[in-house]
Amino acid sequence: MDENSLNIGEYLIQAIYKTGTRHVFGVPGDYILNFYAKLNKSPLKLINTSDEEAAAFAADAYARFTGFGVVCVTYTVGGLKVLNATACAFAEKSPILVIAGAPGYKEREKYQFLHHKPNKYDDSLRMFERITVASTGLDNPTEICQEIDRVIHTVLRLKRPGFIELPRDMVDMLVTPVSDHTDQVKKPDSSLQTEAVDALVHTINSAKQPVIMAGIGVLRYNLVSALESLAEKTNIPIVTTILGKSVLDERNTHFLGVYAGIIGDDAVRAYVESSDCVILAGMLLTDVDMGANTAVISPDVMVTLSDEECSIGKREFSVPGLMLLHDLLEKELRYHTMSGVPVPVRQRLPSFTPSDAKITTKSLVPAINSLIDDRTVLITEVGDAVMMSLDITIQRSGGYLCPVFYSTLGYSVPASIGVQAACPDLRPLVLSGDGAFQMTGMEVSTACRYHMNPIVIVLNNSGYGTERPMIDGSFNDVAGWKYHKIPEITGCGKGYLIRTEQEFVDALKEAYTSKELAILDVILDPDDISPQLRRLCQKFSQGVKQ
Amino acid sequence: MDENSLNIGEYLIQAIYKTGTRHVFGVPGDYILNFYAKLNKSPLKLINTSDEEAAAFAADAYARFTGFGVVCVTYTVGGLKVLNATACAFAEKSPILVIAGAPGYKEREKYQFLHHKPNKYDDSLRMFERITVASTGLDNPTEICQEIDRVIHTVLRLKRPGFIELPRDMVDMLVTPVSDHTDQVKKPDSSLQTEAVDALVHTINSAKQPVIMAGIGVLRYNLVSALESLAEKTNIPIVTTILGKSVLDERNTHFLGVYAGIIGDDAVRAYVESSDCVILAGMLLTDVDMGANTAVISPDVMVTLSDEECSIGKREFSVPGLMLLHDLLEKELRYHTMSGVPVPVRQRLPSFTPSDAKITTKSLVPAINSLIDDRTVLITEVGDAVMMSLDITIQRSGGYLCPVFYSTLGYSVPASIGVQAACPDLRPLVLSGDGAFQMTGMEVSTACRYHMNPIVIVLNNSGYGTERPMIDGSFNDVAGWKYHKIPEITGCGKGYLIRTEQEFVDALKEAYTSKELAILDVILDPDDISPQLRRLCQKFSQGVKQ
Repeated sequence: MDENSLNIGEYLIQAIYKTGTRHVFGVPGDYILNFYAKLNKSPLKLINTSDEEAAAFAADAYARFTGFGVVCVTYTVGGLKVLNATACAFAEKSPILVIAGAPGYKEREKYQFLHHKPNKYDDSLRMFERITVASTGLDNPTEICQEIDRVIHTVLRLKRPGFIELPRDMVDMLVTPVSDHTDQVKKPDSSLQTEAVDALVHTINSAKQPVIMAGIGVLRYNLVSALESLAEKTNIPIVTTILGKSVLDERNTHFLGVYAGIIGDDAVRAYVESSDCVILAGMLLTDVDMGANTAVISPDVMVTLSDEECSIGKREFSVPGLMLLHDLLEKELRYHTMSGVPVPVRQRLPSFTPSDAKITTKSLVPAINSLIDDRTVLITEVGDAVMMSLDITIQRSGGYLCPVFYSTLGYSVPASIGVQAACPDLRPLVLSGDGAFQMTGMEVSTACRYHMNPIVIVLNNSGYGTERPMIDGSFNDVAGWKYHKIPEITGCGKGYLIRTEQEFVDALKEAYTSKELAILDVILDPDDISPQLRRLCQKFSQGVKQ
Repeated sequence: MDENSLNIGEYLIQAIYKTGTRHVFGVPGDYILNFYAKLNKSPLKLINTSDEEAAAFAADAYARFTGFGVVCVTYTVGGLKVLNATACAFAEKSPILVIAGAPGYKEREKYQFLHHKPNKYDDSLRMFERITVASTGLDNPTEICQEIDRVIHTVLRLKRPGFIELPRDMVDMLVTPVSDHTDQVKKPDSSLQTEAVDALVHTINSAKQPVIMAGIGVLRYNLVSALESLAEKTNIPIVTTILGKSVLDERNTHFLGVYAGIIGDDAVRAYVESSDCVILAGMLLTDVDMGANTAVISPDVMVTLSDEECSIGKREFSVPGLMLLHDLLEKELRYHTMSGVPVPVRQRLPSFTPSDAKITTKSLVPAINSLIDDRTVLITEVGDAVMMSLDITIQRSGGYLCPVFYSTLGYSVPASIGVQAACPDLRPLVLSGDGAFQMTGMEVSTACRYHMNPIVIVLNNSGYGTERPMIDGSFNDVAGWKYHKIPEITGCGKGYLIRTEQEFVDALKEAYTSKELAILDVILDPDDISPQLRRLCQKFSQGVKQ
């Protein structure tokens, strides 16, 4: 491409390429087809999913792994299908860019009813505005380069979705690129920063039983090593919340386990809830992360370091606290020696020898723990899959994905595609409920198409196991599928029907060894749910019945 | 239920029941679970699909058949997934009601981050407002009954979607039903009506070569018999547009065929385009219906009778023209005798005797025509499926469904579930592209679950056949599935692998006889497309390349 005579399609491709991204996920349609033709000739690789939502979930996982993900679809019939996934990315701070084709502006003026038009031509753009940090309908050729840059830079900075609507008559329009785009970001006040850091040092050093609670912000802003250094330097133990699970390699000596109010481990909970200084690093105080709002942590003991806030108890500093981690490390910090720190959960897990006993949610956890390795990325659906995963030890920072706060279903198989596009040498291990699998699980065929090899475990308990303990009825049942036979349809991978512990371990071992896509159809009793889920449901059902 | 002490959930169920609807489609979730429990005990039957979008498509088809359809899902992770289907229903005037659960208002005040929250708590409601004719977030107990009534009545009147957001803390709240709801609708001016009818009579009677072009409005407002009577009384021939296909039983002696500009039959096109009086009854002037905007019909010869407009050429009357059909019939109307009326398309179709030749898009049409009956509802996806269907003779009014204007994919299999819920004695015949099938086709398992038996024909040409003639690339390929093996996964129905005409006819005959759900996996060459589609794509590709 010649830098000086680009068309808009090429400029957009270049702008994406400059972020470091090398893949675009999507499904084509006529209003975006000319841009697809350009993408196809570009250095960006297209990954076509079966359905648009899966493309957006894949882009979301890719973004959580690499810092930026792109999904490209057609007008409304593509775009509106990815609103749910975009809302998820907004809620959980995943930096994705949604590009949607659209009718040309001239066509819109000429014709009242062009196909795919919902009510008004700008409906889609207006909907995306609500759940993105930057959006634009590219309508003014003189501003298009700046608009593209503005949206992409804002996504990168705020780690939340952006939206570009690309009318098809703009794609081939020539533009003169401007190279002087700079983000208009207010620099934080340095004296305020100093004040905040000093106050933080004082609070942390004088704490008797401090604990670090790490959230996704630490990952998003590449602050994992800084956080690990802080723990090392101060000997303060670390917990994560559910959404923050795997922020750090969970074999880290300072990592105690996942804190989740009444849902999580009792000893971890007792330690956190009796702490006089809970350092919330990059966290969202969501109901899920607070153990279905059962957390008992006084705001007075909270030290909040997020990308937007910095506070110590009720004292607030107008600086983004998370960015002070590096400054903190340069200060003199006390090496704490505390009594009462619990033994990390991973060291208390029972050892596991598989038998011919029926496989259960209880035995699945140690069985997976016995085989998971440091190349595995565990991706779970919301429901018992995530609850069971709390006790699975993740052996790499960022090696766990689950949209547990936004809690949408159908994320895991598409996400495995995003992960393997980003890191072909990692192995996604998908843990999915059967209800969630029926939504998007057939995207295993997309994985096949691109020679990917996730290991997909389907928890086949014939229904929505999370809802049964809340309010049950036949509406919690799902249609019966023989998941292990799916490879016969897709023509790739191997299916396993699993009823015993031994069968599970054998299958998982074989899947790891063979490097083939695998579907493990694990038959569970409909009422077999993990203790964590039972506690969550009891709490949530109070909300349902209120 | 006691009329005088209902809770809101019960009131809503009663209000739905009063419309005549007997089914609700959906997927449960915790914010809607208490309403699901009530639904489950009510006289309304729940149909659980695998994914929410399918539930909305099923409700849309149900609504097109019965006049009202209901989809019920949870907050955002359910709701946002049905925005695309709701936009489709808006665009094509399908009267559906979307009910979505939500966090209670008290919870929202107490907690900043409840699971499923996108950006703001009202994002979903605000998005639905854009593509519904009435919507409400039930927040004020004293107005709730009126609000429910207002939304449902508006949907019924305007034949477009409505949205009710149901916070879970409202479901069990007691209400005192009000029985005095009346729609605030301005009655049309009767003298204007008289003036319009007189002008219409004059125009129609003095026309030399009139033609009626029937659209979906005729079906939505139950005016099929009135339209047939008009044709009978005046001897004016009828064409439909693509979206209006099957407004009347296509064996009607006055029915010429589908008009679709350059896409459709040449003789029909010549007749319509040389007409001096084209009576547009209940039509939307969409690009698709106008043959990808190739129609050559002067606005001067158009007589527009819609639910919103009435006009003769440039002369407009401020009355809803479609509602004047009955008045027209009471007038003295001339019996036209015209030369040059083409022989109806159905009478010019070649006869068909299957051979062992490879099955093609060309032979599929007469093959289906040779077996389709008056209990069949043909449901097609957008793409070559709809193009091929133009020459398939539908033997019942309303016996054809395709969202051809909004043109979303993935409609057909879910719609077959809606059709059979509404009319168990009808047989859906689904004609789907493979790309569309991969989006929602696995909902055949939902059909199995509810003992339904659609016949699903998958046009297996390995990709998006509609896009290939526009701009081709590997992005138009889809993953290879062995569709005929799907019954092995769902445990129900029979699959057929079809390569020849004879195999197709044998399979379709067997499917009709056996009454079992059937999947016909029809192998087609990737470049085998119908002549209609080729013409459409040539025209559309001009837009793509513009």
